[in-house]
Amino acid sequence: MQPHAQQPMHTDVLVIGAGPAGLYQAFQLGLLGVSFEVVDALPMAGGQCAALYPDKPIYDIPGIPAINGQALTQQLLAQCSPFMRMLPGHSDLPHAPREHLHLGQVIDALQPPANAQDTFEITSTQGLTWRSRAVVIAGGVGAFVPREWPIPGVTNLHQLSNLHHHLPEASDTRAPPWAGQHLMVAGGGDEALTAVVQLANQPAPLAPAHITLVHRRHAFTATPELNEQVQTLMAQGRVTFVAGIPMAAQVTGERIEHITLTTAEGQPTTLHVDHLLVRLGLSPRMGPITQWGMAMERKQLLVNSSTMATSLPGAYAIGDICTYPGKLRLVACGFHEATLAAHACLAQLYPQACGPLQYTTSSEALLKRLGKA
Amino acid sequence: MQPHAQQPMHTDVLVIGAGPAGLYQAFQLGLLGVSFEVVDALPMAGGQCAALYPDKPIYDIPGIPAINGQALTQQLLAQCSPFMRMLPGHSDLPHAPREHLHLGQVIDALQPPANAQDTFEITSTQGLTWRSRAVVIAGGVGAFVPREWPIPGVTNLHQLSNLHHHLPEASDTRAPPWAGQHLMVAGGGDEALTAVVQLANQPAPLAPAHITLVHRRHAFTATPELNEQVQTLMAQGRVTFVAGIPMAAQVTGERIEHITLTTAEGQPTTLHVDHLLVRLGLSPRMGPITQWGMAMERKQLLVNSSTMATSLPGAYAIGDICTYPGKLRLVACGFHEATLAAHACLAQLYPQACGPLQYTTSSEALLKRLGKA
Repeated sequence: MQPHAQQPMHTDVLVIGAGPAGLYQAFQLGLLGVSFEVVDALPMAGGQCAALYPDKPIYDIPGIPAINGQALTQQLLAQCSPFMRMLPGHSDLPHAPREHLHLGQVIDALQPPANAQDTFEITSTQGLTWRSRAVVIAGGVGAFVPREWPIPGVTNLHQLSNLHHHLPEASDTRAPPWAGQHLMVAGGGDEALTAVVQLANQPAPLAPAHITLVHRRHAFTATPELNEQVQTLMAQGRVTFVAGIPMAAQVTGERIEHITLTTAEGQPTTLHVDHLLVRLGLSPRMGPITQWGMAMERKQLLVNSSTMATSLPGAYAIGDICTYPGKLRLVACGFHEATLAAHACLAQLYPQACGPLQYTTSSEALLKRLGKA
Repeated sequence: MQPHAQQPMHTDVLVIGAGPAGLYQAFQLGLLGVSFEVVDALPMAGGQCAALYPDKPIYDIPGIPAINGQALTQQLLAQCSPFMRMLPGHSDLPHAPREHLHLGQVIDALQPPANAQDTFEITSTQGLTWRSRAVVIAGGVGAFVPREWPIPGVTNLHQLSNLHHHLPEASDTRAPPWAGQHLMVAGGGDEALTAVVQLANQPAPLAPAHITLVHRRHAFTATPELNEQVQTLMAQGRVTFVAGIPMAAQVTGERIEHITLTTAEGQPTTLHVDHLLVRLGLSPRMGPITQWGMAMERKQLLVNSSTMATSLPGAYAIGDICTYPGKLRLVACGFHEATLAAHACLAQLYPQACGPLQYTTSSEALLKRLGKA
C-alpha cells in the first residue's frame, strides 16, 4: 500500500494493539467516558488469539469454561460495541470495520509531547496520524506482520502496488486485483495452499487466469487435505508449480514485472507476473516500540504495576508487552492491567472526574454510557 | 446447628470465600495441580454476586457483554468442575453440593503454623476443621450471615435447634422440620414475606400447621405483590400477623418454647412456638479475619501485589478484602489476583514444580488436568 497524507485524528488515548487486552482497554476507557482510537497491524481484531489460535479452545478465561480465539474476539468486540460501533452493512466478524478501530496499520513513529499540555503524535507506515494525550501500548509480542519473500536487489517491497499478502474478506464481492490475470503465489505451507485452492475455485470473473505456485522445495508443509487439493489442481493444469527461490526481479515504477527464480534443480527461469501474493505466514515484530526510550526489562516494557505507566509520562503498557514483579503472560492478567490503565488515564486526563468507584450493576452514569439506562 | 466433632480435612490450600474470586482461585489452583478446599458462609456459591445481585446484569466482566450474578456463578462453577465435581444426582445450581466445596460454614478460628513444616488449622462455627499449608482469603466484604432477631435474655441463639434462617432448597423433597407444626416467621421485608408465601402454599404434609408472622411495625417493606399475597393469606386465616418486638423467651435445653412480644400497641403477648424462622436478610460480617494479626489498611488486608501475600506467611488475600497500591474493587481485578495467588501458592508449596508458564491452548499437562487431553 502507498502512504498517503491525512489529517491527524485527535483523541484522548491511542490504544496500540487490538488483541484481548487492547479491546478490553477500549471498553474500560469507554465506560469511564474517555475517548480512544485503537490501531492494529493485523487486518482483523484479536491479536494473538486471532493470528495464532482462532480455532483452539482456551479454558482459562475467567467465567468462560471454553472459548476459541475467534469467539473470544467477537465477544470482546460485542462488549466494546457501545463505544466502537460497527459500521452499517457489516458483519460482527473480527475483520469488520468499526468506529475508532484502525486495522492493517503498523505504527512506526511516536513523538512524545514536548510538555504536559502537548500531545503525542503517532504515525503508521500506512500514512495515518493520531494525536493523543496518552498512549496505551497493548502490543502483545509485537505487530503481526506478514513474512516477506526476499528478492535480491528489490528493496522497496512495501511500495510495490502488485505485491499482496492478504486474501479478500469472504464478504467482499468486488473483483480482486488479480481477477483474470496471472498470479504468482509464494509459499508452501497452509497459508499459501489455502490461498491457491480458494482462488483457483472462485468463479471465472473473480479467479486469476492462471496461478503459479512457487516454493523453495518440492514438498509442501501443509495439511494432507490441502496438499491433495493442490496436486489435483496441478494435474488439471489449473496451477503450475515451480520449486525454486527468487534471484532477481524486474521492477518498473511500482510494479514487479518479471521474477527470475533458481529452480531446485539449479536452473534459472524467468516468469512474467501480473500480481504476486506472498503467503509465508505472520511473524510478530516489536518494531520501533522498543526504540522510544522507555525503560525495558528482558525485551518487555517495565511498568508501575498500580497504574501500568511506563517510564515515559503519558505512555502506559498492558498485556504481554509489559512487565512488573509477578507478571504472568495470561489473558486474565491483561484484562486487569487494562482496567488499571483506564483508571490511570482518567486520573491523568480528567482528574476532576475521578470519584468513588462505580459499578455497572448500579451506576446510572455507567448504564447510560453503555446505552442501557 | 450444633457443633460436632470431625476429623480435620488436609489440603494444600484452604480458600475462604466462594464468590467469583474464590471460585476462580479454585480453578487456577486446580490447573496448577495444587489441592484445595473452598468454604463459604452462604448456603450457595457466588458471594456478593449471589447474595446482592443474582438477577442484575453485570456488563464489565471481560469477554462477557452481559451476565447476571447467578449465571456468572454457574459459569465459574462449570469452569471449576474438573477440580470440584458435582455430586451425583444434583443440579448445576450455585447451592448444589460439590466435591471440595463447603457451604454454610462460617470460619471462626485460624491457628497459624508454628513453623514452615507445620500447617494452618482452621475451624468453622459449624464444627468443621481444615489443615492446610496455605490459606487464600477471598472474603469479599465479609461473610454473608443472616441478621439475628435479638431476644433479650437469650444469648445462645446459635445453639437453638428450632431456630432457622434458610428455606429448604427447591430440589429438596424431604419434610422440613416445621411440617405440620406452628412456625413463627420474624421479619417484614422480601425475605420474610417470600418465606411466608412459599411455606403457606406448600402441600399439606410439608406446610406448617399455622404460621405467625412477626414484624416490629404494621407496614411491611416488601414488594406490592408479596404484600398483597400475605394480606390474602391473613384474610383467609392461614397466617396470623403480630406487630411487635420480642421481649423475652422461655428456652428449655436447646429449644425455644415460648416468645413474649410487646405489641406495637404496647401490650405484652406470649406465643408458643414449635419453630422460629428468622428472615431479616443477610449482613456481611468481617468476623475474626481482622483479628488474625495480618497487616491491614482501611479495614482491608494489605498484600504484596505481585503474590497477594499478606503479612502472615502462607496467608494470601484476593478480591474485595485485599488492598495494594492501585487496588480497584472490581470482579476483573479479583480474577487476576487469584491467578497471581495460585502461582505464589505453587511457588511456596511445590517450588520444584515451577517452570515456564503453560497455556491451556497447548500444554498437554494442563489439558490432562482439565480432562481434555
